[in-house]
Amino acid sequence: MAEKNKTKIPYEKVDTQYYSQWYNKVIEEADLTDKRYPVKGMNIWKPYGWKLMQNIDSRTRKHMVNTDHEEVKFPLLIPEDEFQKEADHIKGFDDEVYWVTRAGRNELDIPLLLRPTSETAMYPVFDLWIRSHADLPLKIFQMVNVFRYETKQTRAFTRMREIHFFEAHTCHETGEEAEEQIKQDLEIMEKLSKKLCLPNLELKRTEWDKFPGAEYTVGVDSLLPTGRLLQIAGIHQYKTNFAEAYDIMFEDIEGEHKYVHQTTYGMSARLVGAIVGIHGDEKGVILPPAIAPIQVRIIPITYGDKQNDILEYCQKIKEKLESSDIRTDIDDREDVRPGSKFYDSERKGIPLRIDIGSNELEDKTLTLVRRDTSDKKEYQFDELIDKVKHEIKDMEQSLFENAEEFLQENIVDADEISEIDENKIYRIGWCGNRGCGEEIEETTDRHILGTLYDGEQYNGECIICGNEEAEAAYLCKKE
Amino acid sequence: MAEKNKTKIPYEKVDTQYYSQWYNKVIEEADLTDKRYPVKGMNIWKPYGWKLMQNIDSRTRKHMVNTDHEEVKFPLLIPEDEFQKEADHIKGFDDEVYWVTRAGRNELDIPLLLRPTSETAMYPVFDLWIRSHADLPLKIFQMVNVFRYETKQTRAFTRMREIHFFEAHTCHETGEEAEEQIKQDLEIMEKLSKKLCLPNLELKRTEWDKFPGAEYTVGVDSLLPTGRLLQIAGIHQYKTNFAEAYDIMFEDIEGEHKYVHQTTYGMSARLVGAIVGIHGDEKGVILPPAIAPIQVRIIPITYGDKQNDILEYCQKIKEKLESSDIRTDIDDREDVRPGSKFYDSERKGIPLRIDIGSNELEDKTLTLVRRDTSDKKEYQFDELIDKVKHEIKDMEQSLFENAEEFLQENIVDADEISEIDENKIYRIGWCGNRGCGEEIEETTDRHILGTLYDGEQYNGECIICGNEEAEAAYLCKKE
Repeated sequence: MAEKNKTKIPYEKVDTQYYSQWYNKVIEEADLTDKRYPVKGMNIWKPYGWKLMQNIDSRTRKHMVNTDHEEVKFPLLIPEDEFQKEADHIKGFDDEVYWVTRAGRNELDIPLLLRPTSETAMYPVFDLWIRSHADLPLKIFQMVNVFRYETKQTRAFTRMREIHFFEAHTCHETGEEAEEQIKQDLEIMEKLSKKLCLPNLELKRTEWDKFPGAEYTVGVDSLLPTGRLLQIAGIHQYKTNFAEAYDIMFEDIEGEHKYVHQTTYGMSARLVGAIVGIHGDEKGVILPPAIAPIQVRIIPITYGDKQNDILEYCQKIKEKLESSDIRTDIDDREDVRPGSKFYDSERKGIPLRIDIGSNELEDKTLTLVRRDTSDKKEYQFDELIDKVKHEIKDMEQSLFENAEEFLQENIVDADEISEIDENKIYRIGWCGNRGCGEEIEETTDRHILGTLYDGEQYNGECIICGNEEAEAAYLCKKE
Repeated sequence: MAEKNKTKIPYEKVDTQYYSQWYNKVIEEADLTDKRYPVKGMNIWKPYGWKLMQNIDSRTRKHMVNTDHEEVKFPLLIPEDEFQKEADHIKGFDDEVYWVTRAGRNELDIPLLLRPTSETAMYPVFDLWIRSHADLPLKIFQMVNVFRYETKQTRAFTRMREIHFFEAHTCHETGEEAEEQIKQDLEIMEKLSKKLCLPNLELKRTEWDKFPGAEYTVGVDSLLPTGRLLQIAGIHQYKTNFAEAYDIMFEDIEGEHKYVHQTTYGMSARLVGAIVGIHGDEKGVILPPAIAPIQVRIIPITYGDKQNDILEYCQKIKEKLESSDIRTDIDDREDVRPGSKFYDSERKGIPLRIDIGSNELEDKTLTLVRRDTSDKKEYQFDELIDKVKHEIKDMEQSLFENAEEFLQENIVDADEISEIDENKIYRIGWCGNRGCGEEIEETTDRHILGTLYDGEQYNGECIICGNEEAEAAYLCKKE
């Protein structure tokens, strides 16, 4: 394991305003997105940012296909009458939807809304797709843009009005199978988190914070340097709530007609926001190697007459790395000095840099520089693939473990409301009653993110009513 | 080359109504899309259809990246005021756009439209991206959904209101460079056409049929069995028309400020519609091997006690094919008879089928069946990869050449308006004047699709005015 990075923005109570400025600055400098598009909360994915998102999507897609999900694409527009069938769902989204009321010169008879999520687009059709138990389980997913009329201050990747979205929807014969699906989703999430270097807490949300229409929601939360939790995924048990509203029934093996049990699993471009926020440092973003659009950048340090030989050597290194499927480029711009090239590579968060000058050319070596630690090492050309692979693996592990350590360090037990005054995650006792829950949230100006999905032993009392049957709840500010 | 398919729907004047019924039926049976979504002209991409489209997109993406285009993603919603800056463009699309007028409970101050194409979303930002000649050429593309309020009868893939769309946008210093870009686009189109088995004509459209806002448009048209031309791509020379409207200027090497020259290249899900229409036969769709989601389907013909050995042999064949990157599956359903499995494989248009029964198991052979010709051949297991690769190549060539032959056979010279009475492509003399052009279109109830982009020798006179300076124009019904 590499030593902890020294130049990191301090992993402690980071001033929120400073964080915002820093976050916007490093995103702009890495050229991930352009927020100057003339509609608020709708940004342009620039090539580098879009490649990063596509790499994340490819990983997600692979996990979904491996677990027998099939990819589909449903239409964007949902008729008002279909949207209004599940009462809690509409209550949850009514204030957030965009309405298409006109087409060409015609007022539409039935207004169409832009999907804020696709339950109400998909479920009227599930009713047509599912006839008998032979059609189950139905496991599909899609990657689309969704729209939510966010009223708070918008922020690139984490709080947008047009959102790049992943959503999986499943239908099962029984509640137990649906529960198994949720466990499978959490396993996928765990594998993804490792590669994206996003340690997190899996928290069963409170009744008043669950997904509109869900029976329960598991929120997956990562901790930002500001001490706020950012939800990076949501996994929802719908039971038969939507099936009853959309009449999605199947004939079981005995010929009986029953409602299907449903689950969903959602993620979004927030994953990018979490990566930027959690791993970036004063020099810029740091991208986890598994999803970095460029994993290794080679920089020729060319002086005088050896320029061609050095470039040729760089090309040879590039070809060797690419033949091992390592995404590589050469910064061979002629009018830019090496110092500026180092700076660019850092700002773009490229995991590894290889510097090649006359010495390296002569000795058949290479100088390898880690983005996260700035560690510089010299290797023989013959060691290239082994060492690069090793550093990639080590960096991935190091990014994850540092963030995991930060997360764990910032979980603090509190027995009294008065102890809750820092930007940390407080583990408190809560009896589970909404009354006490709301009092906790109001007096601390924080949210109860929930209780651990896997459960845990807890011996404390409810921090409000003193009830000894309390569970451990996690209290924190939300990003 | 394989012999021409005997069971094909007749490659001649196919009755349009019959064609429609057949087209809808084979699409449904192949399970490419579901048109029962409750908004007209907006269909669901089912897993098999979406994989096909993704395979097409991957090929397009590869060509674009190889020619230094970068992929981006712009927002869907365009403010009304940005949309209205180019007069011809707005005139061309005004009747077709969907308007978002409300969000949550608020009426929007400035209505937002759903992109019908992205010029007016991108070009206000190009103005920010381009400062000097060093920023040029700018070459980007995106793959997104666009929306057009189609008033005619909608049809899966070819005439939809939500359209899966590819669009490339480029900016150049000079008109010559823009012309070179158009040639590059046509080269990409040609390579794609070969793999998609879609021979076509590249026609420079008439003034009144060009893209709204363009200086000129090259339409790429394929011929359907109905004798109608379907546009499968559009390549547009904008000159400085949009640059002037959106003030996109650059400082040239002498410090002078000039407008950029722009081009675009667009394709859509129509490619799928063309493939279905042109290659399908009475048994269903036929998918070109390069983009077929499944290239080879193995069918175990299991009788009694050899079932396990046969399945094991099938598995061995599958693994061998997959190790050569040939997309393969096994139809190992237990409760379905081989005949039904053959039928399913045909309906899904899977290029090659491998039947494995006791004889094949014993002799270490395999029976290979071509979807397009129904040719059946027996091969040794050792020949597997070579023969499959050969058949894939031969089928690709055969599909292309048969369609090319059909296209060429259906181009007919006409000297008199009265000769124009069949569902064919008529090559006629046209002086180029709009008056004569419109008379041709009105009296024949057909469209002038244009003149060949590459030009051609022509000695006839204008079919209306008799002017001897006539060019060869292509007249046909449009799908």
